[in-house]
Amino acid sequence: MKLALVQLNYHIGNFEENSKKIIHHIQKAKDRGVDLVAFSELAICGYPPLDLLTRQEFVEAAIRSIEEIATYCNGIAAVVGGPSLNPLARGKQLHNSAWFLADGEVKEIIHKTLLPNYDVFDEYRYFQANQDFRVVNYKGRRIALTICEDLWDDQPTEAAFARNSLYTLSPMQKLAALKADFMVNIAASPFSYHQENVRKQVVCKKAAGYKVPVAYVNQVGANTELIFDGGSMMVNSEGNITHKVPTFREGWVDVETDDVDQETTNALVETDPIELIHDGLILGVRDYFRKSGLKKAVIGLSGGIDSAVTAAVAVKALGAENVHGVLLPSQYSSGHSVTDAEKLAENLGIEINTVAIKEIYESVENALSPVFEDREPDVTEENIQARIRGLLLMAYSNKFGHILLNTSNKSEAAVGYGTLYGDMNGGLSVLGDVYKTDVFKLARYFNRNGEMVPENTIVKPPSAELRPDQKDSDSLPDYDVLDSVLFRYIELNHSPKSIIEEGFKEEVVRKAVRLVNFNEYKRFQTPPILRVSGKAFGVGRRMPLVAKYDKL
Amino acid sequence: MKLALVQLNYHIGNFEENSKKIIHHIQKAKDRGVDLVAFSELAICGYPPLDLLTRQEFVEAAIRSIEEIATYCNGIAAVVGGPSLNPLARGKQLHNSAWFLADGEVKEIIHKTLLPNYDVFDEYRYFQANQDFRVVNYKGRRIALTICEDLWDDQPTEAAFARNSLYTLSPMQKLAALKADFMVNIAASPFSYHQENVRKQVVCKKAAGYKVPVAYVNQVGANTELIFDGGSMMVNSEGNITHKVPTFREGWVDVETDDVDQETTNALVETDPIELIHDGLILGVRDYFRKSGLKKAVIGLSGGIDSAVTAAVAVKALGAENVHGVLLPSQYSSGHSVTDAEKLAENLGIEINTVAIKEIYESVENALSPVFEDREPDVTEENIQARIRGLLLMAYSNKFGHILLNTSNKSEAAVGYGTLYGDMNGGLSVLGDVYKTDVFKLARYFNRNGEMVPENTIVKPPSAELRPDQKDSDSLPDYDVLDSVLFRYIELNHSPKSIIEEGFKEEVVRKAVRLVNFNEYKRFQTPPILRVSGKAFGVGRRMPLVAKYDKL
Repeated sequence: MKLALVQLNYHIGNFEENSKKIIHHIQKAKDRGVDLVAFSELAICGYPPLDLLTRQEFVEAAIRSIEEIATYCNGIAAVVGGPSLNPLARGKQLHNSAWFLADGEVKEIIHKTLLPNYDVFDEYRYFQANQDFRVVNYKGRRIALTICEDLWDDQPTEAAFARNSLYTLSPMQKLAALKADFMVNIAASPFSYHQENVRKQVVCKKAAGYKVPVAYVNQVGANTELIFDGGSMMVNSEGNITHKVPTFREGWVDVETDDVDQETTNALVETDPIELIHDGLILGVRDYFRKSGLKKAVIGLSGGIDSAVTAAVAVKALGAENVHGVLLPSQYSSGHSVTDAEKLAENLGIEINTVAIKEIYESVENALSPVFEDREPDVTEENIQARIRGLLLMAYSNKFGHILLNTSNKSEAAVGYGTLYGDMNGGLSVLGDVYKTDVFKLARYFNRNGEMVPENTIVKPPSAELRPDQKDSDSLPDYDVLDSVLFRYIELNHSPKSIIEEGFKEEVVRKAVRLVNFNEYKRFQTPPILRVSGKAFGVGRRMPLVAKYDKL
Repeated sequence: MKLALVQLNYHIGNFEENSKKIIHHIQKAKDRGVDLVAFSELAICGYPPLDLLTRQEFVEAAIRSIEEIATYCNGIAAVVGGPSLNPLARGKQLHNSAWFLADGEVKEIIHKTLLPNYDVFDEYRYFQANQDFRVVNYKGRRIALTICEDLWDDQPTEAAFARNSLYTLSPMQKLAALKADFMVNIAASPFSYHQENVRKQVVCKKAAGYKVPVAYVNQVGANTELIFDGGSMMVNSEGNITHKVPTFREGWVDVETDDVDQETTNALVETDPIELIHDGLILGVRDYFRKSGLKKAVIGLSGGIDSAVTAAVAVKALGAENVHGVLLPSQYSSGHSVTDAEKLAENLGIEINTVAIKEIYESVENALSPVFEDREPDVTEENIQARIRGLLLMAYSNKFGHILLNTSNKSEAAVGYGTLYGDMNGGLSVLGDVYKTDVFKLARYFNRNGEMVPENTIVKPPSAELRPDQKDSDSLPDYDVLDSVLFRYIELNHSPKSIIEEGFKEEVVRKAVRLVNFNEYKRFQTPPILRVSGKAFGVGRRMPLVAKYDKL
């Protein structure tokens, strides 16, 4: 049987465009003599639709669209992901389903069993779990259909939250007993630099373990914070990857399912995390703009590494002609802050403006002097500078319709080293899930074929330049130590005590943890952050603001 | 049996303080000859602890604290809400449990069955559902223990998402078969002006329907967005409320459980929603400050109704001496904007400063003129004014340690009638879940015993005063129409089509819906909003930012 794995980029709620894409690929596959074509999880509406699933008109439009797609399935069958109605009066009103379409109609609707409800996932909020295990018979083949998490039936730690212990057997075990000829797993599995490689290993392990060839079809493209890299693949029952769709873009492969088990080579290759982050961020920025009907970005260029790498990502994502830099020097800005930013603009080929903030700062100082009287300067004055910059960048954004890109990195976001309504402004945070030490690596990666980020920007010590001779290292531990502690606290969810036991200085750990906890209120108001790690700030990490747990 | 229902205000993660409070009330109850004392759901850690539940050190501290409390339970038994470990290797690692403590030790741990996962609730993210139904025997009585949602076993519409259809019988039906003498339901049920009355009806209906007296113990106090009004009560098996703990504060009642069924009077009284909102907001502001170790608030006073009502709430919550107003007039401010704000400050007894923004505005204009060249003024210039005000208020906040209270109302937040990083600034949004028409009613309610909000502030037409003679009605439908449409779209989740069918003008509905959808990006970055309705912006309403669904 000739099976096509089609990896597409869907626009949430845009049923017209999503349907058109799906129908177009059904017709193209039919022309190639494909028997069965598979699209990803919730393809019809894009993933994650979130609370749009609670709106009746949304679900009705999704189902109507799938029924229309079915009419194009003559001489070819298709698996399309979409919500379906739970016919029972009990339980949640929807299933997360794989719709099997053939002979011009809906033949079968198979539901997802394991509904992830950890990290960024909220599937129990909307869906009722499957309880009915069967294979689909088509053209003499027994086809098992599973949806994303169903394949991941032995996750340790956090993912264990997703399992439903009311089942004695996992969906893979249940289906294995039914002896399918092959399995199609339709997925919407978000990217992280870690997940990319883990996913390949899991699909291979499951195919080999359950002795069934697995066609894995993931969506590609970014929807706000979540980036999907695709990585669709065919794995034979020996656990070898026999076919792959390239990551980070739309594409497909055709597979002769009866032949895959003869393949002995395994295309399993690990990709460097920095390269993955690079590709992911570019797709994340590009789709944020394209899917919102936007074209142009503005970035405040400080001469520092974060704004430089943000600009490099933006230029790759949107084109140099759509990226504008604004330099906002103050009396505390070093000479190199302007020259480094100018060099960056020259390297990237982007236009810039320079707006000095000194006079505005003085007018603010004057206006506040009767209120502040003779109080000493403190962090207030530093924040005023950052907020004047934020105000000017937003003014540029409003006047010219450019979207401000936020340039904060994950280390800063973690410890609150940034000014709310100042440098924390922006429509999208590009580097908010990238630690400072990785921002440096990204800069080097961007420069691999010639300088994009100026060398001086990479080698000079990081500084916010909000007071004379300020350095980040005045207030924070060295970034290599800080990032190691933060990674253990945030990504690995280790307790402060166990991080200290690993050999980090108690004082450093306690300070970092206290800053992370204290600054939940700042992160509450940050722009959406492109997620590239296993635990990003934002929807996947839900901490109370008003709480007391520093000493645990 | 003498049962005490103890309604307390818990601090999330503060095990030391929470334990002390619980132990103190166990000892006081013992002195009064109480046999059994009941505390609310997850009392030991406060509700909602969110992802702190994924941290091992947090769960261990919770369990250690409960075990310590048990040692105080001699001659008295206690029911304390807290997480417990799921001993099975399958499923989620925790249960949401009622710990039954007696004879100095943990006697029983009963788990929650119905785990809500809709609106603000994410309990499937953390907890494994109960499958084992039994009563606790103590001093010759058969006591059924349930946790919050377990009682709500026939919810229509949205709450149906919480039900787990794998059970044929609900926990109430299972327990009814065990013929308990009475039930203790420990809850953490957040306040809304609607919920307050619904909850009484549900508890009465369930007690009568299952013929079992129900002791309902809710927590009180606010944790960031979520306000808990308490409303703990004893309901006999006839469905009559026989005992009540006053709402919105700590308190308790003692009940002779053997006698409750002799009571024939029902204390069921409906409270006016505006009074409930008033009480809820005051508690919300007070606890945000108190639990964060903060004392003082600053508010930008425009002379308009929103800032006036916000200031009135703050004065009631924090005391006039802890509230500071800043007047920030521009060249577009009407004369009454300053005099009305001054009158408000006089009525409330708060101190104010006045900082004119004209010169700062001119310095911004000058700085940007080489960039903007000869472009016409537009919304950019209005936003610059709002952002200068936001900057000055934050400077005051930083310098003096006052927390800025946000003054946006729900109508504005819905349609995006506000400036991000300008008037949308603040640590906490006081009125972000109160429609403009209800803000007027709240003003009248505040004035019931003498003028707090100046009459002229209430009667003049609302205006943002960002350009000459601007009125809200220039850009928005009249608030009574707008709020009716918004209520149907947001709270009732009606489709645009059905709202039009109800008789609202298509043009008005389509515009309102388009604005609500378009402005998800602004609301993404707003401060936490005190929740007083059944559907507030924030954690209980999760909409994708990058999506297209206007035309559905």
